Amino acid sequence: MSKPSIQEIAAFCKRKGIIYPTAEIYGGLAGFYDYGPYGIEIKNNLKKEWWKFHVHKREDIVGIDGSIITNPEVWKASGHVDEFHDPLITCGCGYRERADIFIEENLGIKAEGLSIEEMKKVLEEKNAKCPRCNKPLRDIKLFGLMFTTNIGPVISEKNKAYLRPETAQLIFADFPLIVHSSRLEPPFGIAQIGKAFRNEISPRNFLFRMREFEQMEIEYFVKPWQEEECPYIEEVMDKEIKILTIEMQKNNEKEKKMKVKEIVKKKIMNPWHAYWISKHIEFFESIGINPENLRVRQHLKEERAHYAIDTWDLEYKFPFGWKELEGFANRTDYDLKRHQEYSKKKLELVDQEKGKYIPYVIAEPSLGVDRAILMLLYEAYNYDEKRGYVVLKLHPRIAPIKAAVFPLIKKDKEQVRIARQIYQELVDNDIVAFYDETGSIGRRYARQDEIGTPWCITIDHQTLQDETVTIRHRDTQKQERIHKSKIVGWIKKNL
Amino acid sequence: MSKPSIQEIAAFCKRKGIIYPTAEIYGGLAGFYDYGPYGIEIKNNLKKEWWKFHVHKREDIVGIDGSIITNPEVWKASGHVDEFHDPLITCGCGYRERADIFIEENLGIKAEGLSIEEMKKVLEEKNAKCPRCNKPLRDIKLFGLMFTTNIGPVISEKNKAYLRPETAQLIFADFPLIVHSSRLEPPFGIAQIGKAFRNEISPRNFLFRMREFEQMEIEYFVKPWQEEECPYIEEVMDKEIKILTIEMQKNNEKEKKMKVKEIVKKKIMNPWHAYWISKHIEFFESIGINPENLRVRQHLKEERAHYAIDTWDLEYKFPFGWKELEGFANRTDYDLKRHQEYSKKKLELVDQEKGKYIPYVIAEPSLGVDRAILMLLYEAYNYDEKRGYVVLKLHPRIAPIKAAVFPLIKKDKEQVRIARQIYQELVDNDIVAFYDETGSIGRRYARQDEIGTPWCITIDHQTLQDETVTIRHRDTQKQERIHKSKIVGWIKKNL
Repeated sequence: MSKPSIQEIAAFCKRKGIIYPTAEIYGGLAGFYDYGPYGIEIKNNLKKEWWKFHVHKREDIVGIDGSIITNPEVWKASGHVDEFHDPLITCGCGYRERADIFIEENLGIKAEGLSIEEMKKVLEEKNAKCPRCNKPLRDIKLFGLMFTTNIGPVISEKNKAYLRPETAQLIFADFPLIVHSSRLEPPFGIAQIGKAFRNEISPRNFLFRMREFEQMEIEYFVKPWQEEECPYIEEVMDKEIKILTIEMQKNNEKEKKMKVKEIVKKKIMNPWHAYWISKHIEFFESIGINPENLRVRQHLKEERAHYAIDTWDLEYKFPFGWKELEGFANRTDYDLKRHQEYSKKKLELVDQEKGKYIPYVIAEPSLGVDRAILMLLYEAYNYDEKRGYVVLKLHPRIAPIKAAVFPLIKKDKEQVRIARQIYQELVDNDIVAFYDETGSIGRRYARQDEIGTPWCITIDHQTLQDETVTIRHRDTQKQERIHKSKIVGWIKKNL
Repeated sequence: MSKPSIQEIAAFCKRKGIIYPTAEIYGGLAGFYDYGPYGIEIKNNLKKEWWKFHVHKREDIVGIDGSIITNPEVWKASGHVDEFHDPLITCGCGYRERADIFIEENLGIKAEGLSIEEMKKVLEEKNAKCPRCNKPLRDIKLFGLMFTTNIGPVISEKNKAYLRPETAQLIFADFPLIVHSSRLEPPFGIAQIGKAFRNEISPRNFLFRMREFEQMEIEYFVKPWQEEECPYIEEVMDKEIKILTIEMQKNNEKEKKMKVKEIVKKKIMNPWHAYWISKHIEFFESIGINPENLRVRQHLKEERAHYAIDTWDLEYKFPFGWKELEGFANRTDYDLKRHQEYSKKKLELVDQEKGKYIPYVIAEPSLGVDRAILMLLYEAYNYDEKRGYVVLKLHPRIAPIKAAVFPLIKKDKEQVRIARQIYQELVDNDIVAFYDETGSIGRRYARQDEIGTPWCITIDHQTLQDETVTIRHRDTQKQERIHKSKIVGWIKKNL
């Protein structure tokens, strides 16, 4: 079965109330999307599962929720004001594109990691021309990716503020207060889910590169001398993951499967990275992602962000290629040191034996929520030839509606009464349910299949005799009969 | 027992990891706050309960999640570009204040609803002087409350965009797509939770007036001829609410209790308003708010927003006075009509008998999340003289941690083993729990009391004999013994 194109996914999402171009009646706005009634449920479910897995089920991680606009000094200290730019190519005719994307897509040359000067040289050598007006393209300048705004009534440099381009910095800026109130000692992590904004020159691929997006991040801190000591590594030693090292990339090799045991033994990855990557793959598997479609790729030296000494990307095999889903950067003590320098506040912790130290961020699992949703949609989207429509095979915990309840015959008052009773019982037990009595039963099944409802419960003539109902499974279309008093327990068990 | 001042609440929140001034190491930023480890749990619990109550448990309401930055035409159509201003008073010395606040606080005159010209006259008559430099204050101008930014590399009026000042408009702008995919017919509602931004001249009172804040809103649509027909009104007829009408305000009367029955009969309120206000009070009661501290006040004509024909505010008795928690505006068809005009897209629905119509927004319950949290904190905050510390009496469903588990004696390996087992069982059952073995048992109770944990479970010597544990209640300090196999069930029942 072939995977849908990005256009097909986007059109499907719009039609089914999952995701819309923002304010579509005005033509939308490039890089901005709204979540519809089913999309927001999927997003909330994903966030809830992530928080449960990474925060509530762990004793070493707490969460926070920082402001989108914060003191602008934060972005000076973090290096974003000086460093967070993309190379922009412009033409007098108004054409604009990210220079590296232009060079790769129009000239077929890899531009990752090239300097501005090197990119200009490429334009010169290849005599690059504007795709719109055909004039020579030579000009590249740096363009800041942070959205700016102004606080208070006076517009001035002093009152300039930024929409955060990543959630991470709030964790660093609040570090002393968080440590104080949570009484944690490294190794420990701080998690955050929230919006971030990047003034992308070329937003594209639907939810993949947006200007307003959501992140789920963890900053995981260790004492500097604990960098190689991960007490949890035994848990994941037998886990197999697909990896692609720098060396393999240089030799044009493909990713290959390796056990964590081997990865750690051969020192391919720091044990903390191996642990966190394994845990995150485990999380994705727990919500229905096939691990065959996930690989971890090491950043080439020239790709790394200004703060990182080693980075691995967890990539998903999108129809438009293997692309970053989640980054795992070793940020060292770069951020806390910079904030200490800029704020002139001590951000050190004290170890009883070794004295004062600044913790290291050994791993920073940073996941794009919207990208994860795009992945979930790709995994789930199945056009069923026989049924003649799309069956959205979402994991039950991610599906927007868990169970739909139908009386087979709308006119049968007794069927309706029992169906209503069952619907109410589900809702009272915090199971998101949907009641539907309109249209043929096939049509009602189809509506639920398309939005990913795993189970449909039908009340029919037999229910009136023996109090059993049918539960129909979305993926197999198989039906089973159970007693109506067992429905809630059955669903809770299968969730 | 006296209620704490706003400063005491803010200091307590900072100390206990609930809420911090954003990036406090840089001195914070006026009107912006970060939620710490316990604060984010409280906020998530509040949002979860609200969504369950207003969306999942109702068949007539669906949710969406719109973009913070959307097509700027939305804000022209909504009237915000032209109308969303505050009167700003400025002095050459740099002093700035909202003119109505200045007049009320410095001149002791009610300024609500006064025009700019009228306010200028007051300044003149009272010979108002700058509180900072003592020069005469006469200048008032309008100041736009929307934060602006620029999309893409070219800074121009064309590329200007806004951070949404309210979430509501996304519901209107997505209206046709939502209706299409959800197949709903009025009366129905669309709910949304999300950030909004207002460039307030004078943010103040901690979480009460912030520049970045979160809203939980419902736009409830009816057919124009259903304005007086609320099919759910019977549910709430016997509910008693404290009301304060325009007339009562003019006569300087105080709010008084009245049954919904009477309110509707006397046509004091539209039945839909009476219903929605009752349901929202019911929601607040369900999460621990004393209804004695809630009243509904009708907006004076001059207070009403440009789009509203009648508005009632649900107010909470904050220590700084009765203040708006949630507004209930009758927006009529103002917004959909404006968007139809500006977008040139049809936003009508079709009624089988009466033909095409634009639905009316009969009620728009619009709640500030952060204000609601401030209310929850005020209700819960109890300085206990005997214990010598603050006991945060949050409703169990709102409390960040549901149960803490302690071995009485840290050195007793068997106690620790059982405590760990119980902790793990709680976590596996999705109950947010906390394990603590450090410090005296009194100290451990105190830590939990301060952050609102309703139940502490202690494993002691008796546990080793009969497998019972103690459950200690936060508010009464009373203890009861139950069998360890019954803990999960007991907590789930009491949540």
